[in-house]
Amino acid sequence: MNSFGRNFRITSFGESHGTGIGVVIDGCPPGLELDEQDIQPFLDRRRPGTSPLTSPRQEQDRVEILSGIFEGRTTGAPVALLVRNQDQLPKDYEELREKFRPGHADFTYLEKYGVRDHRGGGRSSGRETIGRVAAGAVAVKYLSAYGISVTGKILAVHGKTDTDQIQREILLAKGADDSVGGIVEITARGCPAGLGDPVFGKMDALIAGAMMGIGAVKGVEIGDGFAVAGMFGSDNNDQMTKDGFVSNHAGGILGGISSGQDIIVRIAVKPTPSIAKAQQTRDIYGNIVEISVKGRHDPCIVPRIVPVAEAMLALVLVDCMLEQTKYHT
Amino acid sequence: MNSFGRNFRITSFGESHGTGIGVVIDGCPPGLELDEQDIQPFLDRRRPGTSPLTSPRQEQDRVEILSGIFEGRTTGAPVALLVRNQDQLPKDYEELREKFRPGHADFTYLEKYGVRDHRGGGRSSGRETIGRVAAGAVAVKYLSAYGISVTGKILAVHGKTDTDQIQREILLAKGADDSVGGIVEITARGCPAGLGDPVFGKMDALIAGAMMGIGAVKGVEIGDGFAVAGMFGSDNNDQMTKDGFVSNHAGGILGGISSGQDIIVRIAVKPTPSIAKAQQTRDIYGNIVEISVKGRHDPCIVPRIVPVAEAMLALVLVDCMLEQTKYHT
Amino acid sequence: MNSFGRNFRITSFGESHGTGIGVVIDGCPPGLELDEQDIQPFLDRRRPGTSPLTSPRQEQDRVEILSGIFEGRTTGAPVALLVRNQDQLPKDYEELREKFRPGHADFTYLEKYGVRDHRGGGRSSGRETIGRVAAGAVAVKYLSAYGISVTGKILAVHGKTDTDQIQREILLAKGADDSVGGIVEITARGCPAGLGDPVFGKMDALIAGAMMGIGAVKGVEIGDGFAVAGMFGSDNNDQMTKDGFVSNHAGGILGGISSGQDIIVRIAVKPTPSIAKAQQTRDIYGNIVEISVKGRHDPCIVPRIVPVAEAMLALVLVDCMLEQTKYHT
Amino acid sequence: MNSFGRNFRITSFGESHGTGIGVVIDGCPPGLELDEQDIQPFLDRRRPGTSPLTSPRQEQDRVEILSGIFEGRTTGAPVALLVRNQDQLPKDYEELREKFRPGHADFTYLEKYGVRDHRGGGRSSGRETIGRVAAGAVAVKYLSAYGISVTGKILAVHGKTDTDQIQREILLAKGADDSVGGIVEITARGCPAGLGDPVFGKMDALIAGAMMGIGAVKGVEIGDGFAVAGMFGSDNNDQMTKDGFVSNHAGGILGGISSGQDIIVRIAVKPTPSIAKAQQTRDIYGNIVEISVKGRHDPCIVPRIVPVAEAMLALVLVDCMLEQTKYHT
Repeated sequence: MNSFGRNFRITSFGESHGTGIGVVIDGCPPGLELDEQDIQPFLDRRRPGTSPLTSPRQEQDRVEILSGIFEGRTTGAPVALLVRNQDQLPKDYEELREKFRPGHADFTYLEKYGVRDHRGGGRSSGRETIGRVAAGAVAVKYLSAYGISVTGKILAVHGKTDTDQIQREILLAKGADDSVGGIVEITARGCPAGLGDPVFGKMDALIAGAMMGIGAVKGVEIGDGFAVAGMFGSDNNDQMTKDGFVSNHAGGILGGISSGQDIIVRIAVKPTPSIAKAQQTRDIYGNIVEISVKGRHDPCIVPRIVPVAEAMLALVLVDCMLEQTKYHT
Repeated sequence: MNSFGRNFRITSFGESHGTGIGVVIDGCPPGLELDEQDIQPFLDRRRPGTSPLTSPRQEQDRVEILSGIFEGRTTGAPVALLVRNQDQLPKDYEELREKFRPGHADFTYLEKYGVRDHRGGGRSSGRETIGRVAAGAVAVKYLSAYGISVTGKILAVHGKTDTDQIQREILLAKGADDSVGGIVEITARGCPAGLGDPVFGKMDALIAGAMMGIGAVKGVEIGDGFAVAGMFGSDNNDQMTKDGFVSNHAGGILGGISSGQDIIVRIAVKPTPSIAKAQQTRDIYGNIVEISVKGRHDPCIVPRIVPVAEAMLALVLVDCMLEQTKYHT
Repeated sequence: MNSFGRNFRITSFGESHGTGIGVVIDGCPPGLELDEQDIQPFLDRRRPGTSPLTSPRQEQDRVEILSGIFEGRTTGAPVALLVRNQDQLPKDYEELREKFRPGHADFTYLEKYGVRDHRGGGRSSGRETIGRVAAGAVAVKYLSAYGISVTGKILAVHGKTDTDQIQREILLAKGADDSVGGIVEITARGCPAGLGDPVFGKMDALIAGAMMGIGAVKGVEIGDGFAVAGMFGSDNNDQMTKDGFVSNHAGGILGGISSGQDIIVRIAVKPTPSIAKAQQTRDIYGNIVEISVKGRHDPCIVPRIVPVAEAMLALVLVDCMLEQTKYHT
Repeated sequence: MNSFGRNFRITSFGESHGTGIGVVIDGCPPGLELDEQDIQPFLDRRRPGTSPLTSPRQEQDRVEILSGIFEGRTTGAPVALLVRNQDQLPKDYEELREKFRPGHADFTYLEKYGVRDHRGGGRSSGRETIGRVAAGAVAVKYLSAYGISVTGKILAVHGKTDTDQIQREILLAKGADDSVGGIVEITARGCPAGLGDPVFGKMDALIAGAMMGIGAVKGVEIGDGFAVAGMFGSDNNDQMTKDGFVSNHAGGILGGISSGQDIIVRIAVKPTPSIAKAQQTRDIYGNIVEISVKGRHDPCIVPRIVPVAEAMLALVLVDCMLEQTKYHT
């Protein structure tokens, strides 16, 4: 399933070492001013090779708008975006043709499809998120016209919360041919009350699905999240005043519908599974083998996941906004 | 959005104080033996009034199969299930016509729809989960033919993990007109490798959406979950042997696709928002008022959420199994 | 697939000789006044046993609203409707357990599902249309608030267009243990311009799918329909004036989007396949056998299809109206 | 709505005078051998400029596969196909910025979206069918592995059925600055029994929606189609023998499910609305104006619709085949 959303519906395609990565947005409202410069900065933020903390893979990741724009504005037709791949070193991946990388989708893709594009993870590569970020940039543009912003930040990496300590943890892991995980928090501000659909289309359900669908994410929480398990109802309930709420334990969503407060989401990001440190695994013939994953990998994917998580939250919000227009008749 | 699933697709209807609660299952494969006795025990497990720890509301919650069965087996036609409501005391709810209960969907439903069925929460009531549990029972029956089981258990309530302590915490909260939250873990055993869809249909994304869509759930994690944020890649990766994996940090899902290991999910459940303890809130006219939520409420919803969470996981698994048949051509 | 529509989404269930027939409407906007009296007249129109021209099967077909209404108005929650079956004579159908009726779905259902509810056609019975008509009545109620009407009429039966001749043709066929087909025209008036979605969601595509999905319909045309095949462009094009169009060859839809003119649809309805006249067929063991379909069947289904076709057109229109609200932001 | 299909799901994008036209296929089974040469011949068949009967617009319409192929086979990942536009003469269209062409979607698009890409019809251009034909070619390739073929042919143009007469009619219309319509028949051979879904997913309903969604199609019929309106049941029913059916009035579909016989579909195609002959219309300011549609248009679109209709039927068949695998568990 390579589509996401009901109203602002995106369809993603492309592999790490194929021609490129793209996304089609179906349902983008007409009249939105849009050009490549609205999208490129978001792709630049997720791009590797920009600091010693990330993969040295050099990709320009230039976006091309293929359709849906006329005289600088969207027309209501699908907006297709394409980023061509450039810096491919498939020889780095020849070993992976036969070995399953621990923590990766190599084994499960082969179980599912009976065939596998081993080059850089193929479709399971982190480059797949280019489509999300490009579409998310269009969503952000739409939201900004309604005064809604979405911003993510790193809360912790390997248990550390201070920026300098985080940087040290990442470099230490890199030096040890290892990797580390962390936590990202994404906040949407300015979202009106009343968005989201009861029962199976709850906004928090959509957000949870959106976030857990990002590779490497293993946990999602809204508002107080797992901390609610230790609370009294009288502490967890957000009491009300004339003007709104006195607290925001709920994280901006009640009964699956936005309350008008900030929407607060946290995600747990696992350590990059690709590490140079030797690990034991299987090959496709069933032999036990050792693997040391070469190539240019991030010792910590947390910083680069921030724009991806922002994009997914923005996509959910736009989708809910368009859904809600049905009740304005 | 009152439907869930792509292949084993359920559509839920009904309110707490209306005629009843029902669910239609579209896509149930033909030939499955099914009668009310396959479903009733699951409804009995979620039923209130069975212990001092739960709401004293007395509901028999008898399920009636309205369609889809012929000579004791499913035919491929939709299976409709109906549970009529019985024990309704709408006068308990008269105060709620004008006051927003803290921690409830009262305010947000009114913002969304401009109208609200205040009787017992209407569609946002916990009784809505009857449809999930009834449909989940059919899913469980289907899974059992493939040797797949789904079981949930309480991990903690209000920070306590021991059964006696948990019971005491709940009764203490009840005595204080308050409520407590907790954590539930659900495990699927026997699930084959290869289920789940890459990118936006990842099995963990579907599970996260399914779980977060249960009222009162504020967090979801798979496998090591939030703990991955503090781990090294070399510890988090599940290395492989000839016969499978040496550990299960991933919780049975890699790249969104099942690995054949146990699927392990944990959810955080907030304290029941309906408490008798006085709280400050707003009424629909904008006045600040005090509210003490009367009626028969659970001081802790955690035990009754267990069968609901099992149902949602079973529904996701059946849906993924039917999806996967496309690749068997 | 027992669901229809994207925004005003109905899910149908039930068999001819099961407990009953029902439908769930998901996406009905809140605030619509609705009770059983809005729906019953439509069911009465499609009900058999009302004239010598139709089946003598006696069914009251009383509709019960199971959910979604509060104080006389819709709330935005799913509206579930149920009609219980009454007049079942399953012994009439014992012969059909083993024989495939010509022109029926008996053979194809068995090929598809490997199992078949032979009693009155089970799910493939004309009684399935009760769900469509009940949901369509709610759609009609919604449309009427916007000044939109949907009306169907018989254009021809067995080649005759005059009412007396039509009646005679039907009685002649009945007397000969045979049946006849005909043509129905459905017109929507008052529909605003701009409804329908380009490419695959064209309003005429939705209408064609909706109509051809009614059992017994073998052809659908919009506006001039098949007659366009013999026309010049200069005759077929609807030229425009200041106030609109000078003709309506297009049948109210241009490029899949409504033009504001009357929407005109015609459908071809085949002769009822259930006839008492002896026919040759196969049984489930592969033997050639003779069959004379007993039971109480309509010698001409055309009159009873009129409210069904109206319902389907009304459902498409409401769905497109709700879809269009997304462009009003 | 720019997506079509549930299992073999295509998403189309692109405008007549934009960068290009493309399509993404989501759900193409893995292991299918596929390269550009499987697709190009189908695009060549729909291409203009190949005879005096069609538009002289010169487009090479070279297809590029952007994703989803690894070592010559599909992987289960989305297959994205792109055809770049070349022969654009936007000045031809400057007049259309302000005038609504009769018989076109100009007026209705503007009513829907409030904005319009007037260049060659933008998204409502016949060039949109490139996406359908390209995706259809992949569907045809898949079907051929199962011994299923889909072939279309012209039955009539402007009332003539003989090839020479048809050619003369088209050239006559062209000489008169006018255009003519016709009828196309599409037949699928080798389709197994049991495909299609009851009620709203009937195979004939899907086919009708697919065909009526092609621009210029105003009628669809299956098997005997509109002729059934004049028949007796005893003539229309297809009686059975040990080996199958003795006739095929049904057109290969009973109760919405394939019977194993040939699937026979006919469509009515309207005369090309773009004609040089002067017509009366409105401009966007409400003035009555005369229009003579310049540019390079087909005097008869019937020949070029044949491969488009084949593509749509092939897409429906593959979709139903993949749906049916769910019942093979």
